[in-house]
Amino acid sequence: MDALSLTFAALADPTRRAILARLSRGEASVKGLVGPFAMTPPAASEHLRGLERAGLIERGKQAQWRPRRLTARPLRDVAEWVGQYRPHWEERFERLDAFLSNLQDGQQHEKGFDDDRDQD
Amino acid sequence: MDALSLTFAALADPTRRAILARLSRGEASVKGLVGPFAMTPPAASEHLRGLERAGLIERGKQAQWRPRRLTARPLRDVAEWVGQYRPHWEERFERLDAFLSNLQDGQQHEKGFDDDRDQD
Repeated sequence: MDALSLTFAALADPTRRAILARLSRGEASVKGLVGPFAMTPPAASEHLRGLERAGLIERGKQAQWRPRRLTARPLRDVAEWVGQYRPHWEERFERLDAFLSNLQDGQQHEKGFDDDRDQD
Repeated sequence: MDALSLTFAALADPTRRAILARLSRGEASVKGLVGPFAMTPPAASEHLRGLERAGLIERGKQAQWRPRRLTARPLRDVAEWVGQYRPHWEERFERLDAFLSNLQDGQQHEKGFDDDRDQD
């Protein structure tokens, strides 16, 4: 599997994203990572392996504790990939803006019409 | 599956990302989308279903042609999600910058030291 696909696959799970969120605040032991999620140890290992395969986390060198830490490079690649589509969602907002301001103009126009009638 | 996980799962395939890239240049028929990729029709349908489930594409209303088009909203959600990690990769670059400029200072210092020796 290509690197970007591996990254997206690893991110396609709320628990793995929660582990990343935890590691974004600093490195943590496996125990410290798994505790808050009420997972079985095999499930936890599988999640950590998925994140590691994608290069999203790495292990410290300390023999005993081996804390996991976030590696941001694949996330930067995701940001770059998705960034190429930015004009599409910005365009949508521009269309929405235009729609809303047309709507507002319409209402003001209608209000003007009502005022005219009030003067009759 | 939550919406963001669905989106990431749909993006975890190079063919599906290529289909999005094609649609980012304008809507296309299923035939027009599938042609360039040499896929079997069932494989193509499965890819399109995956993208549709994630809300990344939608079908036009025309009964005959039913062109697919990109819907950018889930991509914006990906950009927002990944954007929260931006300080991490920017920090890495800052550390690299600091490292390189230290290295450069070191070399200039060493050069100065060599120059001193030359004057002996």
